[in-house]
Amino acid sequence: MGRWEPNARERLETAALELYSDRGYEQTTVAEIATCAGLTERTFFRHYADKREVLFANSGEFQELFVRAVAEALTSAAPIDALAAGLDAISEMLAGQRDFVRARQAVIMANPELQERDLIKTAAISAALADTLRRHGITEPAASLAAEAGIAVFKVGFQRWIVADEDHDLSRVMRESLDELKAVTAGGQDAT
Amino acid sequence: MGRWEPNARERLETAALELYSDRGYEQTTVAEIATCAGLTERTFFRHYADKREVLFANSGEFQELFVRAVAEALTSAAPIDALAAGLDAISEMLAGQRDFVRARQAVIMANPELQERDLIKTAAISAALADTLRRHGITEPAASLAAEAGIAVFKVGFQRWIVADEDHDLSRVMRESLDELKAVTAGGQDAT
Repeated sequence: MGRWEPNARERLETAALELYSDRGYEQTTVAEIATCAGLTERTFFRHYADKREVLFANSGEFQELFVRAVAEALTSAAPIDALAAGLDAISEMLAGQRDFVRARQAVIMANPELQERDLIKTAAISAALADTLRRHGITEPAASLAAEAGIAVFKVGFQRWIVADEDHDLSRVMRESLDELKAVTAGGQDAT
Repeated sequence: MGRWEPNARERLETAALELYSDRGYEQTTVAEIATCAGLTERTFFRHYADKREVLFANSGEFQELFVRAVAEALTSAAPIDALAAGLDAISEMLAGQRDFVRARQAVIMANPELQERDLIKTAAISAALADTLRRHGITEPAASLAAEAGIAVFKVGFQRWIVADEDHDLSRVMRESLDELKAVTAGGQDAT
C-alpha cells in the first residue's frame, strides 16, 4: 500500500466530476483525474476499477441505506410505507448535495454508456428491495411490484428535484411523488 | 442492394438466437450467424448495426404498438386504464411466442452488455409512454409516474409469464399484476 492519502476518494471523485463536466467524459483520462486530485494513477486504480466507476462510488452505500431503512420499517409498516421510509432515508443522504448531484447527472445523461451503468445500478437496487420485502414475508408478485413502485417514485422525484429552479426539500418531493403514484394507480387522475 | 432474400430478417434472428443459446453470445460471430441463416455477412449488416441489435430487432415495433394502444385508449380512459390497454396489446403481440421469448431472455440475462441494452430500450419505452400521456393532457409528475407504473407491471408480469411452468395467458398475468400494484400502492397488503 502507498503512503497515507487523506480523503483520496473524495479528491478523486471531485476531480473526476469537474473534468467530466468541463471537458466531457470521453475526453478525460484517468491520468488527468489523478493529476488534478494531486494523486497518482495507481492510487486511482486502488479505489476504482475504471473511469466509469468513480461516478458510481457511492451507489453501494446508497443501496445499503435504502434497503436497511426499508427493512427496519417493515417490522411495523405495510410495504408501501416501508418504501416511503426508505425514500426518506436516501433523501436525507442526498439533501444539501444538489449541486454535486446535478453535475453528476448531467455527465451521465450526456453519455449512453454511463446511462446504461446508471440503469444497471438502479435495477440492482430494485432487486435488493424486492429481496428484502420477500425476506419479510411479502409474497410475489407484491414484493417485486412494491420495489418497482418505490424505484418509480425515486426516479420521478429525483428528476423533479434536480430540474427545479430552487432546491426543494427532497423528502417532501418524494412524498408528493408517492401520493401522486397512489392517485394514478387508484385511477383518481382524470384522462382529460 | 443485393438479390431478393425472402425472410432475411426472420432467418437472421432465428439463427442468432439459436447460436447465442447454444454457444453463448460472446462466442458467436456475425459470420456464423449469416452462414447458419444461409445469407452473407453483408446482408446481416444491411439489417442490423451489430451483434446486439439482432436481439432487439422488434423493440421499435413493440414500443410503437404499446404507445399507440395507450394513446387510443386515452381518448376515453384514465391513464392507468389506458396503460392496461397498452399491456393488453403487447400481450397479444407476445402470445404464442413464449419459447422464443424465453430463449431470448435467457441469452440477455447471461450477458451484462445485453442486460444494459435491454434496460435502455425499456427506459425509452417508459419515456415514450410519458410523452404520450403528456400530449393527452396528463400533467407531470402524473404522466411519468403512470408510465413507470405501466413499465413496472410489464416487467413483473413478463417475468412471471416466462418463469412459469405452463404458458399462462399473458393478458391475464398482466391484469393480475396491475391489480396487485394497485393493492400494494393502496397499502392493502399487510406487512407480515
